[in-house]
Amino acid sequence: MSILIQQATILTMKDADAPFTGDIRVEGDRITHIADHIVPHPQDEIIDGRNKVAMPGLINAHQHTPMSLLRGFSDDLKLMDWLERKMLPAEARMNPEDIYWGAKLSIAEMIRSGTTAFADMYIHMNEIAEAVKQTGMRASLTRGMVFMEDDGGRRLQEAIDLVQRWSGAADGRITTMYGPHSPYTCPMEPLREVIALAVKEDIPLHIHLAETKEEVVKIRERYGLTPTEYLEEAGMFEQAHVLLAHGVHLNRRDIGRLKGMRGGVAHNPVSNLKLGCGIAPITEMLAQGINVGIGTDGAGSATTVDMFEEIKAATWLQKLDYGDPTRLPAKDVLSMATRGSASLLGLQDEVGMLEVGCKADLILIDLAKPHLQPVHEVESLLAYSVNGADVDTTIVNGQILMRGRKLLTIDEDELYREVKVRAKRIVEGI
Amino acid sequence: MSILIQQATILTMKDADAPFTGDIRVEGDRITHIADHIVPHPQDEIIDGRNKVAMPGLINAHQHTPMSLLRGFSDDLKLMDWLERKMLPAEARMNPEDIYWGAKLSIAEMIRSGTTAFADMYIHMNEIAEAVKQTGMRASLTRGMVFMEDDGGRRLQEAIDLVQRWSGAADGRITTMYGPHSPYTCPMEPLREVIALAVKEDIPLHIHLAETKEEVVKIRERYGLTPTEYLEEAGMFEQAHVLLAHGVHLNRRDIGRLKGMRGGVAHNPVSNLKLGCGIAPITEMLAQGINVGIGTDGAGSATTVDMFEEIKAATWLQKLDYGDPTRLPAKDVLSMATRGSASLLGLQDEVGMLEVGCKADLILIDLAKPHLQPVHEVESLLAYSVNGADVDTTIVNGQILMRGRKLLTIDEDELYREVKVRAKRIVEGI
Repeated sequence: MSILIQQATILTMKDADAPFTGDIRVEGDRITHIADHIVPHPQDEIIDGRNKVAMPGLINAHQHTPMSLLRGFSDDLKLMDWLERKMLPAEARMNPEDIYWGAKLSIAEMIRSGTTAFADMYIHMNEIAEAVKQTGMRASLTRGMVFMEDDGGRRLQEAIDLVQRWSGAADGRITTMYGPHSPYTCPMEPLREVIALAVKEDIPLHIHLAETKEEVVKIRERYGLTPTEYLEEAGMFEQAHVLLAHGVHLNRRDIGRLKGMRGGVAHNPVSNLKLGCGIAPITEMLAQGINVGIGTDGAGSATTVDMFEEIKAATWLQKLDYGDPTRLPAKDVLSMATRGSASLLGLQDEVGMLEVGCKADLILIDLAKPHLQPVHEVESLLAYSVNGADVDTTIVNGQILMRGRKLLTIDEDELYREVKVRAKRIVEGI
Repeated sequence: MSILIQQATILTMKDADAPFTGDIRVEGDRITHIADHIVPHPQDEIIDGRNKVAMPGLINAHQHTPMSLLRGFSDDLKLMDWLERKMLPAEARMNPEDIYWGAKLSIAEMIRSGTTAFADMYIHMNEIAEAVKQTGMRASLTRGMVFMEDDGGRRLQEAIDLVQRWSGAADGRITTMYGPHSPYTCPMEPLREVIALAVKEDIPLHIHLAETKEEVVKIRERYGLTPTEYLEEAGMFEQAHVLLAHGVHLNRRDIGRLKGMRGGVAHNPVSNLKLGCGIAPITEMLAQGINVGIGTDGAGSATTVDMFEEIKAATWLQKLDYGDPTRLPAKDVLSMATRGSASLLGLQDEVGMLEVGCKADLILIDLAKPHLQPVHEVESLLAYSVNGADVDTTIVNGQILMRGRKLLTIDEDELYREVKVRAKRIVEGI
């Protein structure tokens, strides 16, 4: 199969490139030509790119996809009430089929809002992998492991099974990570074991870090360390590629410890705002050369998984934090949501840019809307004006997953029916 | 003309009402029935409300509509560079026809994102009034007056002409205010004259207040007062109804001075974030019984005038400021964007709620989207998940301005053509 996108405004996200008008050909799963004009082949599926921006698909670097079933179920509560009285009891009622449908709901929202790959940490990962396989998405999947209770062994075995069964599956669209949940749920011993396993198998790690002030207090009480120092002491930053989710409460020395690490930090500004966690020190991390990507966190906290909302929130928060509107300008925040996140997933050579030879993961954004006119600066519109509903077409691995806002791999009516019944059952009486 | 909306999820925004399923009839410009089931009349235009939320239209309490022509033209600059090197030279090139088309562009965006009324402060207000008249919108129009230069007299005369010509025009959809621009552009003498005029004619005032730290420093240097104290000394809060835009840098005593005022404060969180101004102390104002509404500011700073973005940003910022996710919960922030803003425009008895006898200014939001499923709490979805593109139908004064996302009073193709040429001319070489 080949696709020819004609006369789009192309934003490659390569440092040296300004937006330009041109054509893009996709053959199989890869971008094969980018030029001012490309002669069509008879078998090309032609997409009219006029009045549209073609850019790399956004990459959601931290998700818990099945939590979409709990969207809006328990907003405006204290963090511990939200978690202990609402999320945990509801999650305990989710069966594997619920997980499948919740993941599919998040995937539908992501495709519709221009996300082409995501990093997920949850349970029942076989079901999520099936949803990824069927819908055509790209994902890095992680079995989240809490080691404070006695079935850590079972969790680790499920994580190993996931890695063995799904790494490279679905035409290479699925990759995997090992996911010790967080400093406060992983004692030193099992944490070191998982790190050793990750290094041995060259599988990345995905872990929460310093999301709340309370976590910092707890780890200091328990170990006399900051959460970052605790992970460093476990050897996490020595050899492994690590995806650190949140990184809100890092002090200057913590940031220094992350300097030179493989992987980097997934910033989740909307979730951090909505739960009142604080502003992650993104500017300082970037200044130290630490790679930063963007994620949404689960829809249970963020309520939406539209990456364009995260892009806005990310740049707003740096401007607010410094009282300086020049912080994290449009181009930089767009780079975080594409190339930055791609690096976190270990996919920086495959996705996150429009370049010949890269995987064909790209989106088209329709500018023929009042809020996207006139067009002075394309990057400004993308960072500050676009929302997910402006995405017209989403392509992953050379397959068109949405065209003209219509999902091609997901039956939306069936999805809403399943989700409605399951969501009701899950929260009943909680 | 009569309209019957059937079986919508109705959110009246009255304090005592939970969302319920029912019908709404509109006859002429008013809501005449709200009930579980209403028998259709033969002449009713029927709107299927299933899977949709019917709620009062959002009210944008602070706009500079023609600045849409400068959207994305100068983002990520220092405030004074943005204003003096970009906005002011570009605005100086706008002719009355540009103003008309810029206003129409903002109105198109507002209708498409669920706004049914707005308060505008700009120049060439006759052109903006024409755009309001033709498009079917509701607006409170203000000629902004800077008195630091020598043609303050002409500006005041234009303001008086606007009030005389347009108050109550367009079937009552247009109201007017007097607009001394800000404490830092209005010396005491002309400020007192305008206040006296407003009190005498019972016309509200619309003024910027304490948007930046720099303003606070400047007013203290000049008068030894805070901006709020300066306005109080001018007698602004004694009798007049006042719409105060921004109110970011208010101290505790300033807030005390506003207690009991007529009117209140228009919060513009996205603009405040994007320009790095700070977080307005909304929680403290509400605690003092001060009415707070929400506005977008002009698209020159905010880059979009989607009120659902402002709703999200408003609640996020209070949660962030207090480190407390229970601050400004969904229902309260939705009330600010409807009833709060209505009060600022002096229209609290006419719009901002769904109630029999009120003007028929309402919107329908389509919930059949992945990011709005499942439906646990309607208010949560509206505050945290909905964006402007989810608005299906917009009705103002009993007239349908958008249905099924199609604008009925604006030719979008013509609009984009006009805007493109004018915007290019305005910014050329700046």
